[in-house]
Amino acid sequence: MIERYQRPEMAAVWDDESRIRRMLEVEAALLESLAGPKRIPAREIRALREVVNRPLAAAVKAKEARSSHDVVALVEAVSEALSRKAPAAVRYLHYGLTSSDVLDTALAMQLRDASDLLIRGVERVIGLVSRLAARHRLTWMAGRTHGVHAEPITFGFKLAGWACELRRDMERLRRVREVVSFGKLSGAVGLYAHLAPVIEEKVCRKLKLKPEPVSTQVVPRDRHAEYFHALALSACSIERFATEIRHLQRTEVLELEEPFGSGQKGSSAMPHKRNPVLCENLCGLARLLRSYETAMLEDVALWHERDISHSSVERVVLPDATILLDFMLERFARIIKGLNVYPERMRENLDRSLGLVFSQKVLLSLIDKGLGRVKAYSWVQRCAMKAWKTRLPFRQTLEADPDIRRFLSEKDIDACFDLAAYGKSLDAIFRRAELA
Amino acid sequence: MIERYQRPEMAAVWDDESRIRRMLEVEAALLESLAGPKRIPAREIRALREVVNRPLAAAVKAKEARSSHDVVALVEAVSEALSRKAPAAVRYLHYGLTSSDVLDTALAMQLRDASDLLIRGVERVIGLVSRLAARHRLTWMAGRTHGVHAEPITFGFKLAGWACELRRDMERLRRVREVVSFGKLSGAVGLYAHLAPVIEEKVCRKLKLKPEPVSTQVVPRDRHAEYFHALALSACSIERFATEIRHLQRTEVLELEEPFGSGQKGSSAMPHKRNPVLCENLCGLARLLRSYETAMLEDVALWHERDISHSSVERVVLPDATILLDFMLERFARIIKGLNVYPERMRENLDRSLGLVFSQKVLLSLIDKGLGRVKAYSWVQRCAMKAWKTRLPFRQTLEADPDIRRFLSEKDIDACFDLAAYGKSLDAIFRRAELA
Amino acid sequence: MIERYQRPEMAAVWDDESRIRRMLEVEAALLESLAGPKRIPAREIRALREVVNRPLAAAVKAKEARSSHDVVALVEAVSEALSRKAPAAVRYLHYGLTSSDVLDTALAMQLRDASDLLIRGVERVIGLVSRLAARHRLTWMAGRTHGVHAEPITFGFKLAGWACELRRDMERLRRVREVVSFGKLSGAVGLYAHLAPVIEEKVCRKLKLKPEPVSTQVVPRDRHAEYFHALALSACSIERFATEIRHLQRTEVLELEEPFGSGQKGSSAMPHKRNPVLCENLCGLARLLRSYETAMLEDVALWHERDISHSSVERVVLPDATILLDFMLERFARIIKGLNVYPERMRENLDRSLGLVFSQKVLLSLIDKGLGRVKAYSWVQRCAMKAWKTRLPFRQTLEADPDIRRFLSEKDIDACFDLAAYGKSLDAIFRRAELA
Amino acid sequence: MIERYQRPEMAAVWDDESRIRRMLEVEAALLESLAGPKRIPAREIRALREVVNRPLAAAVKAKEARSSHDVVALVEAVSEALSRKAPAAVRYLHYGLTSSDVLDTALAMQLRDASDLLIRGVERVIGLVSRLAARHRLTWMAGRTHGVHAEPITFGFKLAGWACELRRDMERLRRVREVVSFGKLSGAVGLYAHLAPVIEEKVCRKLKLKPEPVSTQVVPRDRHAEYFHALALSACSIERFATEIRHLQRTEVLELEEPFGSGQKGSSAMPHKRNPVLCENLCGLARLLRSYETAMLEDVALWHERDISHSSVERVVLPDATILLDFMLERFARIIKGLNVYPERMRENLDRSLGLVFSQKVLLSLIDKGLGRVKAYSWVQRCAMKAWKTRLPFRQTLEADPDIRRFLSEKDIDACFDLAAYGKSLDAIFRRAELA
Repeated sequence: MIERYQRPEMAAVWDDESRIRRMLEVEAALLESLAGPKRIPAREIRALREVVNRPLAAAVKAKEARSSHDVVALVEAVSEALSRKAPAAVRYLHYGLTSSDVLDTALAMQLRDASDLLIRGVERVIGLVSRLAARHRLTWMAGRTHGVHAEPITFGFKLAGWACELRRDMERLRRVREVVSFGKLSGAVGLYAHLAPVIEEKVCRKLKLKPEPVSTQVVPRDRHAEYFHALALSACSIERFATEIRHLQRTEVLELEEPFGSGQKGSSAMPHKRNPVLCENLCGLARLLRSYETAMLEDVALWHERDISHSSVERVVLPDATILLDFMLERFARIIKGLNVYPERMRENLDRSLGLVFSQKVLLSLIDKGLGRVKAYSWVQRCAMKAWKTRLPFRQTLEADPDIRRFLSEKDIDACFDLAAYGKSLDAIFRRAELA
Repeated sequence: MIERYQRPEMAAVWDDESRIRRMLEVEAALLESLAGPKRIPAREIRALREVVNRPLAAAVKAKEARSSHDVVALVEAVSEALSRKAPAAVRYLHYGLTSSDVLDTALAMQLRDASDLLIRGVERVIGLVSRLAARHRLTWMAGRTHGVHAEPITFGFKLAGWACELRRDMERLRRVREVVSFGKLSGAVGLYAHLAPVIEEKVCRKLKLKPEPVSTQVVPRDRHAEYFHALALSACSIERFATEIRHLQRTEVLELEEPFGSGQKGSSAMPHKRNPVLCENLCGLARLLRSYETAMLEDVALWHERDISHSSVERVVLPDATILLDFMLERFARIIKGLNVYPERMRENLDRSLGLVFSQKVLLSLIDKGLGRVKAYSWVQRCAMKAWKTRLPFRQTLEADPDIRRFLSEKDIDACFDLAAYGKSLDAIFRRAELA
Repeated sequence: MIERYQRPEMAAVWDDESRIRRMLEVEAALLESLAGPKRIPAREIRALREVVNRPLAAAVKAKEARSSHDVVALVEAVSEALSRKAPAAVRYLHYGLTSSDVLDTALAMQLRDASDLLIRGVERVIGLVSRLAARHRLTWMAGRTHGVHAEPITFGFKLAGWACELRRDMERLRRVREVVSFGKLSGAVGLYAHLAPVIEEKVCRKLKLKPEPVSTQVVPRDRHAEYFHALALSACSIERFATEIRHLQRTEVLELEEPFGSGQKGSSAMPHKRNPVLCENLCGLARLLRSYETAMLEDVALWHERDISHSSVERVVLPDATILLDFMLERFARIIKGLNVYPERMRENLDRSLGLVFSQKVLLSLIDKGLGRVKAYSWVQRCAMKAWKTRLPFRQTLEADPDIRRFLSEKDIDACFDLAAYGKSLDAIFRRAELA
Repeated sequence: MIERYQRPEMAAVWDDESRIRRMLEVEAALLESLAGPKRIPAREIRALREVVNRPLAAAVKAKEARSSHDVVALVEAVSEALSRKAPAAVRYLHYGLTSSDVLDTALAMQLRDASDLLIRGVERVIGLVSRLAARHRLTWMAGRTHGVHAEPITFGFKLAGWACELRRDMERLRRVREVVSFGKLSGAVGLYAHLAPVIEEKVCRKLKLKPEPVSTQVVPRDRHAEYFHALALSACSIERFATEIRHLQRTEVLELEEPFGSGQKGSSAMPHKRNPVLCENLCGLARLLRSYETAMLEDVALWHERDISHSSVERVVLPDATILLDFMLERFARIIKGLNVYPERMRENLDRSLGLVFSQKVLLSLIDKGLGRVKAYSWVQRCAMKAWKTRLPFRQTLEADPDIRRFLSEKDIDACFDLAAYGKSLDAIFRRAELA
């Protein structure tokens, strides 16, 4: 991924040094498990453990230039570093393994690390959204369907919906963290020809992974596709929220504005030209991130006990996807934190539709008074139509309608236009959203 | 979906009659919940219940032609049928609802129905694959990586891996069945302006659904995208297995053949021209099914409290995807059931690589005898190379190598070529795959 | 594709009868080409030609039920119909062909037919958009970037851009019509083992197709992927225009409204609830259509001289995609035809940003008077900021600024706020768009 | 894109220095076009031209850190460098432009540069494939459909098909090079408010671009999606060829082997373990590349006169896609150049199916002798079945069949098994493929 979208913590999960350290942890865990049966002295194991924590990327890279095989290069580099101090360890290094035993098990740890950062990122966003929801629990605004005013809502209610969706995202991320936390040391074709399943179990336990029940040369790729999908869905959620902010920031609506640096410039001299560029950027990144989905799904059907076609895909997509989502979460957190909310403008816009947003309440009141639905509907629509054409408040056209007045008293009509009544379920909603 | 890929049971989930029945069940459940507060007589509710089970599609369609609104048409059709018998019920029909309350809640039931069929389909396939795995637990064949012989495996072991992947597919389907089993009766913008959350809870309980914690006009679409993905992944698993069969059926390999009808014709006069067309078809269907993924992910970011852009996508994709996967499962079951397995041919092919598939065992034996990895590797490779060039059995070249003979006795070499030793973890593997 | 999105003309391209007729045309053209060398009497050819135009789908379907091979079924049905009248023709029916010779060549004709309908559809839309562009050439409105007012444009100018994009779509469709107009009669593996290339050339000439230069068993699938992409791009163009209309129809903007049937109902009693549902539907259909792209691209890499995995994909995607785009074009034409345009509202909205949309003109005027860019920018921004904060017209704040007044006379300022000056390139633009 | 898949020439198209130089070329061309009307002295223009060719990336980056706007930073950096020498030029730098005028016009030049490299890459591959085709024009091998032997072909014929597909790829790349070679200087919303269309025409002419007929703030994105698709299709072609090589390299087939470095190691000690890893890698890269398609198609529907959501997508996808395809072409060229072809093995495999690949010729011979198709088919099949079951050569079973012997003499049968006859159209095919 290009630098612009990388945050250091996530980038560190994927850099060469981390990758190599994770691979060495696998080799070390194996040697510890073999120490008994193969009689490798404890001090040799300790010597190896020290190497694990040393920076080795440069040495490995140099070796790889010759053998063009990364695992072979790693084994050689470590062997060289240890050959004097730990001859038995060197002899049993990589014993009975195939490269993928190391690579896939290390990858599982990297994906777990990436998950932890992402989960923390979503948690932070949930916190920010929840606080904002609480603050705007009673900030009324137009609820819109099809971009057109429908019925009143509060901004806090809208955010409560976001909080719920984010919590689903978090659950998905937590789940897929487990889905990929599987290692394998089953050898070239998965049959444990040279190392017993029990060794794999021991090694995985040391690494806090589960052993893949049945593998081929690799961990099956449906796990990675499932993992990826949780990321794509989180990106789509952020896209939904960013799209909402973009809508609410347009000149004619202007109920929200994403934060805008004091020195920042919109593209021209117009001071109102505060463009929702952060949110637009998030929408673009969501497109990008979800586009990888296809490639990940195509990776499932590897040939026989594996081919290596998935490798190039994953080399790019797994870092890119985790890095992008991490960036998106951080950027979205920043947006929510600095979001400018304009409650008066929300109220002003709500009033623009002449009170027609209360029409269903009028309809149901008439039904409650005993009128049939069809007749009630036509009367209400008649008044609404008149309001819309003449730009008179809806309320006024209702009050002037003799049919309606036969059924509804002034007080009944009052009740229909009572915003508070619309808010009567807010408590229950906030409880459901775990925000109360 | 075109007829060719439809099975009647799944098609029935999506036909007009089912859809309307599901919608009516929502309306009926609402009326039952309102019966107390709104004083609707029990006999009127009974009258409505009777209507629910009547075929109504034609009547609704006729009404829809005029209003071009399906829910309005439904309400009108029922009202007409009940107007005399149940005037109060008619008055409160659809009370406080928006169309999506009915549509999305009904859709949840349809998706649940579809899931049940799919889960049953996967279970059946798991059963068939498991039985075949047990039968071929000790049927040796070449394990292949990159399409090239690697080490020996058994056909039963390969199938054990399939069984595990299918079991993951099943768990995913079971999980997403729950993910979409959410109804909503929260009204036009989700704020319960006209019906309290408690009514939604009652109705959902009747329909064996959970109430959506916070909705907009619709159930949030991340649920449907997550649902879809489980289907796409199952399709990719089948693609993996079908690809394997295609590989193993090629003229030069011919270890498997998909079932072939006695009257069926390959395209020319050649009797060996038994093409794996069923498996190829499954691969194509997997491509098709997973292609919908993008559209489902794009549906998440609806505008504000909803726009209707997702509707056309779902109208096509949800039936298509469930119908296709149902068809794929059935077809794959049929393939597994009638699969022709040729164990002798498997053995014959395994022997074609001159015993080189046993080379890692020789390498590790030398290490176990105290030889360093680098030296051991070069000796083994020397013998292997000679075997490959002269077409002599690998074993023979080993026995003729004086260096190797210093470390390995005839018995040691015997042990390296012992297939049984390769199978020593099969018990553990089959236990892990829950096949033992 | 579901019925709702099918128009009869396009559906007819894909129905069984058309497909069979196209296939028979291939067989008939072959027999005519063989008539000389194989001495098939002219009257037999005539007899066959008669059969071509008869409805045969039912008869073929019946046969296919037994052989489960559609081309075999077709040959049998025709043979039966002709066995007495034309024994030589029957003997040479399908001579030297493989099924794909017939299927792919027939498919080329169907795709050509579909293209013709689509090209006509785009032409019609271009006509409608062009007329509307001409009518609104001088209808001023806010130009918006990032959803925020930028500089003034005219609605006709916006439409001129649409017309240009649609013309590119049309060119793409015309081009890919040629890309798929290739037939092949090269036999089972493409080597013309049984029919010389010259026969293929003759047959293709009769069918107004070009012969595929080098084929396998099938016409190479990069052609079909390229074809599909032109459709997907046209759908994306329509999505762009539909999205624009949706934006301009929102309650706070309301500069446009898609046509709304007199009897049609928005979902509630609110008469302003005229939702842009047709445009939303088009956006959903674009998602659906472009999602097939992946499947079509995956079809390119068939194995060896072909496998049949592409067949299931194409059976669904090619009809679906052409049917959907046809529907979209028709629906979009209907929208443009009945589009409600509100020029006063456009003007009203434009005025909402206090004249700040003219700020760049002021900046450039200062530069033209000799002021440096940096200073000019800061002065203009100062006035703009003041206007935005105090809600005073931008013009007024400029006039009150002594620095600016040193450089710009009242007349100079006048010139900056002259809409007509913004329109001075409209003639050139309309000429470029071929609308003048 | 990660370093591993970057080649320096293509990477250079996208590095900061190139990007900035391209942007400055736009600014310089504008100033030259304004020199007359705005009276900018020739020596100032010359001073600017000198700056264009200087490395500026570091200076721009430093400025961008403050303003976080790349075009503003560029203008500032140049202004600083020129302020003394060329005050008028500095004043008119960026005159009347919006950032996208510079960015999109510069991007057009970068895409054109990338195209030139890609076109050269495809040309090279065509050359290599063509030469190999010529060399193996008469190298017979099994033609396979569904992975099963069908009829004989030659390896050169197979390659001729590749050459034709590659030539289509090249034409597509050439075409889309023109599709994106459009610049725009139409200002903030495309209306040429501050610069006349004739200036845009002049500038574009200098840059060897065409002016976008009607733009918004940006060049319309259907151009970039069309561009991308040509790349995706080229990647799919390479995937097809790489898949073929992978098939033909499997242990049981082994007709081809991709080049294998002398020091390179397959993963175990087995010398036959030469895995087609380069080809597998190409398949993975094709998956990756085509996955971007969706994102590019979603970029078309920008809002109003533009939003900036496409920018993040293009920042990643356009370099990634051109870099990946460039790498794929180079790698595929290397594979073709060093491809190991085993003609004896091809012949050996062809013989494995007992001559049944000639069966259609026998069938047609019988028809030519006057036998009806149905009867002919059943006789041939009878003999073929016998051959398959008894493992006798097909020819022998034919000769032993009295029915067949009544129609076909020994010489007739000879003719059916004559490979040369299968090759009689090779000349015509090679001419069509422009290889003769």
